[in-house]
Amino acid sequence: MDQLLTDFRAGRTRALARAISICESGNGAPLMHAVYPLIGRARTIGLTGPPGVGKSTLCSALVAHARKLGLTVGVISVDPSSPFSHGALLGDRIRLTEHFTDPDVFIRSMASRGHLGGVSGATADAVSLMDAFGKDVVVIETVGVGQSEIEIAEIADTTLVALQPGSGDSVQVLKAGILEIADVFVVNKSDHPMALQLQREIRSMLEMLHFSGWVPALVATQALAGIGIDALWDAVVDHDRFLKTSGALEHRRRAAFAQRVRALALGALESRIDAALETLEDARDPYAAAAHVLRGFGGAGDAVGFRSRRARVPPRSSVKGV
Amino acid sequence: MDQLLTDFRAGRTRALARAISICESGNGAPLMHAVYPLIGRARTIGLTGPPGVGKSTLCSALVAHARKLGLTVGVISVDPSSPFSHGALLGDRIRLTEHFTDPDVFIRSMASRGHLGGVSGATADAVSLMDAFGKDVVVIETVGVGQSEIEIAEIADTTLVALQPGSGDSVQVLKAGILEIADVFVVNKSDHPMALQLQREIRSMLEMLHFSGWVPALVATQALAGIGIDALWDAVVDHDRFLKTSGALEHRRRAAFAQRVRALALGALESRIDAALETLEDARDPYAAAAHVLRGFGGAGDAVGFRSRRARVPPRSSVKGV
Repeated sequence: MDQLLTDFRAGRTRALARAISICESGNGAPLMHAVYPLIGRARTIGLTGPPGVGKSTLCSALVAHARKLGLTVGVISVDPSSPFSHGALLGDRIRLTEHFTDPDVFIRSMASRGHLGGVSGATADAVSLMDAFGKDVVVIETVGVGQSEIEIAEIADTTLVALQPGSGDSVQVLKAGILEIADVFVVNKSDHPMALQLQREIRSMLEMLHFSGWVPALVATQALAGIGIDALWDAVVDHDRFLKTSGALEHRRRAAFAQRVRALALGALESRIDAALETLEDARDPYAAAAHVLRGFGGAGDAVGFRSRRARVPPRSSVKGV
Repeated sequence: MDQLLTDFRAGRTRALARAISICESGNGAPLMHAVYPLIGRARTIGLTGPPGVGKSTLCSALVAHARKLGLTVGVISVDPSSPFSHGALLGDRIRLTEHFTDPDVFIRSMASRGHLGGVSGATADAVSLMDAFGKDVVVIETVGVGQSEIEIAEIADTTLVALQPGSGDSVQVLKAGILEIADVFVVNKSDHPMALQLQREIRSMLEMLHFSGWVPALVATQALAGIGIDALWDAVVDHDRFLKTSGALEHRRRAAFAQRVRALALGALESRIDAALETLEDARDPYAAAAHVLRGFGGAGDAVGFRSRRARVPPRSSVKGV
């Protein structure tokens, strides 16, 4: 452990890789305690969007841009482990290989399935470790299915949502809560015949909304050709400046911290619930059984029921007049 | 409440709808306590697969088949609420409308996002309620993204996995854990030029595996034309017989019960964690903060860390010689 910390502080990449593995295996507490004072410097960027939009190409282009600016980069590819998208994701990942030989780019794939708290579990630790290690920029990339795109917004300072021209569901997308997480909309493949229409649709949606601070930016890119990446980077820098001057950065990081504590505490309690379940003898109904199990947790009269859980990302917009 | 239970026991559909809403809102405990002795009769069928495979058409065809046999049916459509698939899902659902006017078919859509425990939360309650209400068959349909296809297998007695000919990733699909949940593989659109190849690929995969009891069945269908639905129903009945004679049904239902208790207990504890978080003053690292929060939960020395969570479905196969 002491050797690991020495190597980590000396900037040895293998120590960073090892540290992330330790957190993934559930033994990160002493490590995180040691490195946590070092964090807070990195600019963290979340990148999400539907399969096929070109997220990995965008990610790769962003990394190349940051490197040109002399910044060191960490990339976390979150694989939601959908059996049905696995093949496609693997294909996508290959685009990042151009950075594999750059010692100042650290790339890590992480599975989200199998971790309580999904993306926000070990992934948040990995972001902290890359930050503490000294990476200037950390990009967290995930495919937008299920909860992952909400969770990424809880971790990242700036969330980019990439959209697909001609996919025909831009309005549905915008209705369904994506406006709550997008700091920057990216219309990739902007040479597509439907790209202008998609941009118009997004602009109309944005005009219908009231934003209390930051109004989501809209950038058109052709990531494969490297077109629009400088504008995208400028939007990220603009948002970063907004976060810092408005106090929103502090607010978001506090919310993200609370979410991590919540996930860790729930994980620990889950083990105890499992132990209590072993001793549960008679098959009452699930609610009665849960109330019985909860008696061992020092709280009297917990309310037992499936409640809807609100998104924990601070809302960034509200629909005018609705 | 008394009136609701009277109506429920009298088979009034509005009482069933209301009961599900009560469970969704987190107040299901007394209700579930009252109706739980009535459950255990229904045959529960999970149906999952990638977007576009024709799940809703399959579901509709299965419902029609069950109705021809004189069985009453409940359908739960679980919407994983991915902003990116929202439009497509809504389109799919329309296929079920042919059963909307049949009083012996009860259809309910449920969102999975926003519930701790995802599909297995309020959805499991809805299945129990339909069962207790007297439905002979309950079909739970979900798109296979993220964890939903694992969770559906925890709830359903028999899990159908529908696959798409020509999607090109059958091997990836089979590698990625789907074999652990599939009781019956359905190759839909069996008139597709690649359908036979997909069936061959699935058969080869199945031959490479060792099954301790049930060997997953493989059925080819053209749901839109109603072709193969009788064979699919036969496979469901075969599996049901296997579950009952082998004792596997008892085992699976016990595991599902434990999972529901776990989700309920975690939900209740989450509220208390949130309360504890409010009083957390100084920004230590998340692990130290979690350990602090856990001190109020009556357990000394909980291990705090992100642990990988195993799938709770009893494994049905293992790869030979690996």
